[in-house]
Amino acid sequence: MKNISILGSTGSIGCQTLDVIRNNRDEFNVCALTANSNIDILYKQVLEFDPDIVVVADYEKYKEFKSSIASYNKHIEILHGEDGLNCAATYEKTDIVMSALVGIAGLKPTYSAVEKGKTVALANKETLVTAGRIVTNTAKEKNAFIIPVDSEHSAIFQCIDRNREFISKIILTASGGPFRKKTAQELKDVTLSDALQHPNWNMGKKITIDSATLMNKGLEVIEARWLFDMAAQNIQVYIHPESIIHSMVEFIDGAVLAQLGVPDMKIPIQYSLTYPERIVASDSKLDFSKHNSLSFGEPDTDRFPCLKLAYDALLDGDSSCIALNGANEVAVSLFLQGKIGFTEIYDMVAKVLEGHSKININSLDDVFQVDNWSRNVALELYKKR
Amino acid sequence: MKNISILGSTGSIGCQTLDVIRNNRDEFNVCALTANSNIDILYKQVLEFDPDIVVVADYEKYKEFKSSIASYNKHIEILHGEDGLNCAATYEKTDIVMSALVGIAGLKPTYSAVEKGKTVALANKETLVTAGRIVTNTAKEKNAFIIPVDSEHSAIFQCIDRNREFISKIILTASGGPFRKKTAQELKDVTLSDALQHPNWNMGKKITIDSATLMNKGLEVIEARWLFDMAAQNIQVYIHPESIIHSMVEFIDGAVLAQLGVPDMKIPIQYSLTYPERIVASDSKLDFSKHNSLSFGEPDTDRFPCLKLAYDALLDGDSSCIALNGANEVAVSLFLQGKIGFTEIYDMVAKVLEGHSKININSLDDVFQVDNWSRNVALELYKKR
Repeated sequence: MKNISILGSTGSIGCQTLDVIRNNRDEFNVCALTANSNIDILYKQVLEFDPDIVVVADYEKYKEFKSSIASYNKHIEILHGEDGLNCAATYEKTDIVMSALVGIAGLKPTYSAVEKGKTVALANKETLVTAGRIVTNTAKEKNAFIIPVDSEHSAIFQCIDRNREFISKIILTASGGPFRKKTAQELKDVTLSDALQHPNWNMGKKITIDSATLMNKGLEVIEARWLFDMAAQNIQVYIHPESIIHSMVEFIDGAVLAQLGVPDMKIPIQYSLTYPERIVASDSKLDFSKHNSLSFGEPDTDRFPCLKLAYDALLDGDSSCIALNGANEVAVSLFLQGKIGFTEIYDMVAKVLEGHSKININSLDDVFQVDNWSRNVALELYKKR
Repeated sequence: MKNISILGSTGSIGCQTLDVIRNNRDEFNVCALTANSNIDILYKQVLEFDPDIVVVADYEKYKEFKSSIASYNKHIEILHGEDGLNCAATYEKTDIVMSALVGIAGLKPTYSAVEKGKTVALANKETLVTAGRIVTNTAKEKNAFIIPVDSEHSAIFQCIDRNREFISKIILTASGGPFRKKTAQELKDVTLSDALQHPNWNMGKKITIDSATLMNKGLEVIEARWLFDMAAQNIQVYIHPESIIHSMVEFIDGAVLAQLGVPDMKIPIQYSLTYPERIVASDSKLDFSKHNSLSFGEPDTDRFPCLKLAYDALLDGDSSCIALNGANEVAVSLFLQGKIGFTEIYDMVAKVLEGHSKININSLDDVFQVDNWSRNVALELYKKR
């Protein structure tokens, strides 16, 4: 029986993690759940999974939640804020921390878990995008094991196994998103609801927009750089509209290993919890008589320049990756609020990076300094429009 | 430095094995070479690779070879016949025996190597088709390690790694051969030279014909049953005309791992020699911008009934597999001599199996008894036409 803490249990990955646990109650026990403010969903989760610790990050919502749950169960510890999240992330009893927060908000609690030497199932890519060097160094030092949850990185993780030293190239596949076939001109006019229609994957809003701009793939390139210790020039992206091959690894002898599956996040989520073992998942078998054609194409960075921005940031250095991520979080948030257009996401991130002066990143404080700078510049750009 | 014995060094796999060794002289030393009768090629190989033991199976050719090589080098031991092959297969100094003989002729020397506890790189599928139970049991007992060389089984071997206990299905891919699109009527009129034009792979004549009838895939199903301890109903075949995905493994959680590469036997040959490591192979990288479409289809066992014959033989029992293989070797040989038509290969094998009474197979003698019976019946059928 493995004890699981879920950071971000009311989001898309958090809910799917609980689906996996619900189907395998003999294998897993939920010992901590955290949410930002969605206490209605959280309440139901707490009743069903009976964790030891519950965290509501938002203070007002925390108070509301605490009074509502009081009548139900007194042995549950209810916490709030950053300290609460760190508490859930480092809880003694926890075997695996599922890090499923969205954005850079995931960095501190994930880092706390790594510092405590926990096994971390990492769905929060911003942790490595913004602090890959610090987090992976600490993980080595503290013997913390990071298991990727992103379908692409899970695919690579499954392909590598004992062959890590013989890798020559990582090939990340990308669906191309809902706008794969649109012209540059058409992209200017796409709406929010168009952008939220991902052709293959059912995901949260932020990552769905990132998939539409291909920034998500760029962030994954940076994540892969840290997860697999691979230089940017050895990480290649192919558009694979069917989303059946989740990613591939090329070895020095020319052999390529690929992981395939139906586009269902429950498979990589489950594997991150069962690794190195596997358990049956009933309804997610790939049928090649249905998926009988797989195709590949090169990404078009003229129409989808965010991917190139991310590669450039990775080559430029750690602080550029932080600035990229911060500006993108602001831009996507503005787009989700209907305040800027789709192609303005790129414009905003590019302009922030143009104005960025690199600094050395030696601590999480440095990370948040650049992140704040980047967000402020992005917001200023918006106000000046 | 690994010492390699090559059984069948003048055939297609044998020559390609020497290509691999030629490119990696620091890694490998050739300590034994064997050929049936092709002493011209063998002579050149001996001069280049300077083995300790050379075997010419055919006695007349052996005498000829011995006198020609006498002037060159006296320290080489030159042997003949079955005893000679066994000697090369069990040579003390040998680390890996490349078993690249064609047909059931490979069984005895390969078994000798297994009995001696050698690591065997297995390209001779008939060893497992005819004596899979005996050979795999002996390998367990003697701690002999069998590494598959067939591209499909090498692919599966690479995909499995530490996950052997979690496999739910093996998916063998098949190019479909040169006649994939021919109607049943058109298949009756194909010529030998048509059948020898494989669309993707450069192989020996026997296996090229077997690929055209899909019997090769059937033999591979039987081979996979023994290599990976997998029941027939969990081994599935898909037609994949591009021959880029060399085979796949489905795990119980729905994840599928696939091994891909350009269709070049040197990759699986090299891996069988370098396992568990990998070394650079210069000219065999897969370019997805060229191989930008991969497709799958179900095999048509009405037009290619040999595949079904093999499945039926596997379900029927060990002696049926031996009979299938023996009859097929005779039939393909007659086709290669221009004596029977393409679709008569199937007819002959099917008739032999119809007349076969199962016996228990407990020894290699039992194997050869059924093999002889099957060959005789096949030849009788030919004479009575």
